[in-house]
Amino acid sequence: MKKWLLPAAIAASFGAQADEGMWQPHQLPALADVLKAKGMEISADNISKLTEFPMNAVISLGGCTASFVSPKGLVVTNHHCAYGSIQYNSTADNNLLANGFLAKSLDEELPAAPGSRIYVTEAITDVTAKVNDGLDKLSGEAFYKGVEAKEKALVAECEQEKGYSCKVYSFHGGLEYYLVKQMEIRDVRLVHNPAASVGKYGGDVDNWMWPRHTGDYSFYRAYVGKDGKPADFSKDNVPFEPKSFLKVSAKGVQDGDFVMVAGYPGRTNRYRSASEVANQFASNYPQSKQLREDIISLIKQTAAAGSDERIKYESTLAGLANYAKNFGSMLEFYGKSSMLDDRKAREAELNSWISADAKRQAKYGKTLATLDQLVAQSNQHLDRDLLLYYMGYSYAKDTAERLYRLAHEKAKPDMEREPGYQERDMERFKAGLERMERRYAPSVDKAILFEMLKRYAALPAEQHLADLDKFFGIDKKFDEKKLAKQLDKMYGATQLGDKDMRLAWMDKSVADFKTSKDPFIQLAVATFDGNMAREQEEKRLEGELLRVRPAYMEAIIAYNKELGKPVYADANSSLRVSYGNVKGYSPKDGMFAVPFTRLEGITAKDTGVEPFDAPKKELELINAKQYGDFYVKSLDSVPVNFLSTVDTTGGNSGSPTLNGRAELVGLLFDGVYESIIGDWAYDDNINRSIHVDSRYMLWVMKYLDQADNLLAEMDIVR
Amino acid sequence: MKKWLLPAAIAASFGAQADEGMWQPHQLPALADVLKAKGMEISADNISKLTEFPMNAVISLGGCTASFVSPKGLVVTNHHCAYGSIQYNSTADNNLLANGFLAKSLDEELPAAPGSRIYVTEAITDVTAKVNDGLDKLSGEAFYKGVEAKEKALVAECEQEKGYSCKVYSFHGGLEYYLVKQMEIRDVRLVHNPAASVGKYGGDVDNWMWPRHTGDYSFYRAYVGKDGKPADFSKDNVPFEPKSFLKVSAKGVQDGDFVMVAGYPGRTNRYRSASEVANQFASNYPQSKQLREDIISLIKQTAAAGSDERIKYESTLAGLANYAKNFGSMLEFYGKSSMLDDRKAREAELNSWISADAKRQAKYGKTLATLDQLVAQSNQHLDRDLLLYYMGYSYAKDTAERLYRLAHEKAKPDMEREPGYQERDMERFKAGLERMERRYAPSVDKAILFEMLKRYAALPAEQHLADLDKFFGIDKKFDEKKLAKQLDKMYGATQLGDKDMRLAWMDKSVADFKTSKDPFIQLAVATFDGNMAREQEEKRLEGELLRVRPAYMEAIIAYNKELGKPVYADANSSLRVSYGNVKGYSPKDGMFAVPFTRLEGITAKDTGVEPFDAPKKELELINAKQYGDFYVKSLDSVPVNFLSTVDTTGGNSGSPTLNGRAELVGLLFDGVYESIIGDWAYDDNINRSIHVDSRYMLWVMKYLDQADNLLAEMDIVR
Repeated sequence: MKKWLLPAAIAASFGAQADEGMWQPHQLPALADVLKAKGMEISADNISKLTEFPMNAVISLGGCTASFVSPKGLVVTNHHCAYGSIQYNSTADNNLLANGFLAKSLDEELPAAPGSRIYVTEAITDVTAKVNDGLDKLSGEAFYKGVEAKEKALVAECEQEKGYSCKVYSFHGGLEYYLVKQMEIRDVRLVHNPAASVGKYGGDVDNWMWPRHTGDYSFYRAYVGKDGKPADFSKDNVPFEPKSFLKVSAKGVQDGDFVMVAGYPGRTNRYRSASEVANQFASNYPQSKQLREDIISLIKQTAAAGSDERIKYESTLAGLANYAKNFGSMLEFYGKSSMLDDRKAREAELNSWISADAKRQAKYGKTLATLDQLVAQSNQHLDRDLLLYYMGYSYAKDTAERLYRLAHEKAKPDMEREPGYQERDMERFKAGLERMERRYAPSVDKAILFEMLKRYAALPAEQHLADLDKFFGIDKKFDEKKLAKQLDKMYGATQLGDKDMRLAWMDKSVADFKTSKDPFIQLAVATFDGNMAREQEEKRLEGELLRVRPAYMEAIIAYNKELGKPVYADANSSLRVSYGNVKGYSPKDGMFAVPFTRLEGITAKDTGVEPFDAPKKELELINAKQYGDFYVKSLDSVPVNFLSTVDTTGGNSGSPTLNGRAELVGLLFDGVYESIIGDWAYDDNINRSIHVDSRYMLWVMKYLDQADNLLAEMDIVR
Repeated sequence: MKKWLLPAAIAASFGAQADEGMWQPHQLPALADVLKAKGMEISADNISKLTEFPMNAVISLGGCTASFVSPKGLVVTNHHCAYGSIQYNSTADNNLLANGFLAKSLDEELPAAPGSRIYVTEAITDVTAKVNDGLDKLSGEAFYKGVEAKEKALVAECEQEKGYSCKVYSFHGGLEYYLVKQMEIRDVRLVHNPAASVGKYGGDVDNWMWPRHTGDYSFYRAYVGKDGKPADFSKDNVPFEPKSFLKVSAKGVQDGDFVMVAGYPGRTNRYRSASEVANQFASNYPQSKQLREDIISLIKQTAAAGSDERIKYESTLAGLANYAKNFGSMLEFYGKSSMLDDRKAREAELNSWISADAKRQAKYGKTLATLDQLVAQSNQHLDRDLLLYYMGYSYAKDTAERLYRLAHEKAKPDMEREPGYQERDMERFKAGLERMERRYAPSVDKAILFEMLKRYAALPAEQHLADLDKFFGIDKKFDEKKLAKQLDKMYGATQLGDKDMRLAWMDKSVADFKTSKDPFIQLAVATFDGNMAREQEEKRLEGELLRVRPAYMEAIIAYNKELGKPVYADANSSLRVSYGNVKGYSPKDGMFAVPFTRLEGITAKDTGVEPFDAPKKELELINAKQYGDFYVKSLDSVPVNFLSTVDTTGGNSGSPTLNGRAELVGLLFDGVYESIIGDWAYDDNINRSIHVDSRYMLWVMKYLDQADNLLAEMDIVR
């Protein structure tokens, strides 16, 4: 790790053992010595090859990671990653969430939730030259659109092959582009999940928390046509036979052991400039946190607990609260940290390296200043932009706008449309309109929109949008009651609350929208040009950033190359490998989080009330000390969850945790509260990932759920 | 430790290292081997002798413990033990609480709060035979009064010597009696205290909590007349020269080191029977906790935050909350523990030992059953008795009753009066009447009395008191509004809110009370006979218990003698020695409380707002890593507080914590939250005492407060 890249976020540690980094597989051979020294037994070359063991056993579910654990396409991932499928198959009579589920044979396996996919990465190709070809003269929006067009073309070409899904990933803010080709398995079935009182033990209370006692695992199976190719669900399909699969360790790990995690981390901001950091933590996060908390209160006030309305908003509330907590954690630890000063110091170090050489000065001399200017420009209307973003929580407004946008986009050839509005996106678009049925209550929707508009009205004049002001009659003497009346009327008149009406609008023309009497359609029409103009400006800025950030990252990489140190790219949902050791940490002075929890901790937490309502039988097994095959002497129990230093983030959920021989010793499922800020700066002292221990998974499967068929199917090693 | 005495409260541990026990000094030689094996370097005989080093350096402040740390009578104790004196000497202009205080020379030392005393224990004499002499034929109230008369006579005889305070302590529920003779030093002066932001850092938030960062120490000095005898405050007095004093260790302790604590623990219930445990935790604690919380709400509702009334009740609120939290902790951990089952198992073991032998059967066979009968009798009216107890929070009612009682008692010869109403008690009695001035607000007093009476009115008929019912017109059709009116009238008419009036009543006769028009005096007169009858019944039960419990304890001791194990008595505010080791603990699965906190933990907790508002200069010193002479390499800092296994309870506050050479390595000041229940059952796994580290005390004195004169006066050793 290079010193200037090593953030000293909370308690500085410039030790040599820093486990920061989400590495692209092809970078691993350069780290071979480090990995070997830390305890990896297989060679670094092995894990750099996508089509060989163990990397070809690591798969994506889109948003989550998973892995093959049998020659017959058995897949293990987190319980929370399979949650939708468990819920989908649950009925009042047969509640798989509450009771758990085990298919005793292939024919008992259940179709996963509609849209469930398994993506097997088969090729990653550097397409940087292809993307950049012919764009060097362009700037702003034209550059942005140029890149977008190249990406679309590459994807379209790649997806010519049936059964494959392709995507271009940008690395280092546009310095490199890789085309990723994945086999897209469409017949996914639910095989086994523990009861939610095991798989989600601790629920939202324990979310991001240690000590943890969650059995966060579930099993899917991948099915393909008889020809071995991806196919829609059919009784005739057969289990997919992966080229390799992971052995499952019954021996597990102990304190200090090497572990690595392969998966699809979503997004980090490790290379953002000091001004980006300052803006985010001084304005964006505090305002966003407050807005989320206010909207939560609003929803709770409007929709009484237990009401039908409230039930519709439970998932929205969970999402709002999740990130309010997330932002809260980041703000808390940012306040205690020297992150901004560290970032500035690193920039100063980089700048002095740049200015020490005329050539470097010519190439990178203005980069950071340009970057900071662009950042300042994009934050010019932050207050307003945040309000507009959270206005999006009004389904009525948001749906009308998206439908009207679709009418515009559909008038263009498919390849020229905005991403999200292409033919390949229509299935998901429709699903969104359908989902609104279970998530929309006019009373709540109106309350949110009213509140956001009130706040918008209070913004200084220069932040106002003429079309929005005009539509809602917002001027200097803003009349709250008048707005309330207008909204009452609009929600009374709109037909977008009706699913069939919404779906029907998918096929209408721009002209149809313009003549519509639906007040939200009228709102969408009235504000369309303004929205497009702002989007254009955003794309211009984005295009400029796509030209500047690569230069900034190039300087960083060049500087580190001189120091002999490789640089990993910020997470971007593409396949990465992180490594580290099983290790506890000190969450505060006087306390140490030990790296393992034990079965007895479940009993100690148990209240009998969700989310601390472990199955009675599990509590009996623990009380009787029935540790069986998974007893660990040093713990005098069976381990439940463990901590490690591996560098992960959202999207890594479900990732296999591997020991030095690439055997599965656990599943990554969370990070500790103190490491949420790790998305901005990794700190060796407090960045910890949380894994469910393979021994706990096997113990529950064997003694609680009697999943003998799966235990026999997997290759369990000691 | 005997197995059947070792409670397995939360997580059973029958290991050999159990550090349970608050030992009378004379018992220590029997534990010599254990103490030596644990790391004590001085001989057990040494600490058994009250008039030799180190025990003669350990002194009582009455409610707190302290120790001499210089040949000139310098005394160290907890900041919270000297709090009253610091407050007493504070003015708006010169706030010693906020700013701290340091007398740079003897003449700058300030008189401690009125009534402050230092008690130097000089003799402890077994008076069991004297107390029991001639009482063997008595029972019930007569026995109770017989014991009381003997105690009074012994005390009076002992206090013949001027300057001494004497008391008879009962051990093992009356099995043994010891007369303790203490020199009573009346001229106590405040020498030095850190700012409250050091000495009370963490305040009520951190009370009973780990991790802890409290500099809970302060210094007094004992003064005597020129003749070396105790004297009232006088400029001519001179520092007391103790026979010995403790050296202060700048080296301190490390994890695992032997430590012992000598002090005056208040009260434990380790030998209560299973039925007593069951009653306490099923009824007494839950009801008391609820009553406290309800009274807290009532006070807060009645006296708005910031109002004069509220200020008067802050200390009452703190007391109520303190024990609501205490009871809450006990109930929480009791619920998780097997304490009751363990207690029953131990009783069964004792019973089988008793019934195995005819002689034992004859002697102890009926003891436990009798004890349980008496316990059942005294809990017969628990609901009512608790309400009457909390009615005592009405100063108006309580004061009237105590004054009328005084009139009755004063009619008797001094030696026949109820304890608390003898001539020797009058100074304290008067101080109580004066204190009411700053703690009584009629609005709050009325609200509490109204609420308690309402609850009393709702009790079943058999719990009612005829005189109280009659006075307040409480009958089957209880009228809340009528009661409210009556109380309005009473509070409007009473003159007990006036200090001079209260004090004047101290000298009035029973006849004066009977003709008084003051409604609270009338209440006291109306309920006096009933109260006395209940007290008589209580004393009868107490007398019976005083006859039965010694037999029960005798059986326990005899059984353990057979096993070769000494038995310590429950705490009773007399001098005891506890021992153990510096040791962390696991407050919950997956977490370990490490035994030391560090300076950096102060910075991490600091919010700048009380109680986390460390002095700016302290934060600067920490930030600059100015560890100076007290740096500990293993912590890479200066230790602040530490944990040990020593068995302590309230009253131990301020006790010197000694290493194996009897050097002062810290001051005991608290126990962790999980060990509050330790008053009922000590658990090796979670019973931990919290000490302020001598190195932190010295560091603050040297670098923050520049208390060089005191550092020079003490004998600081490495």
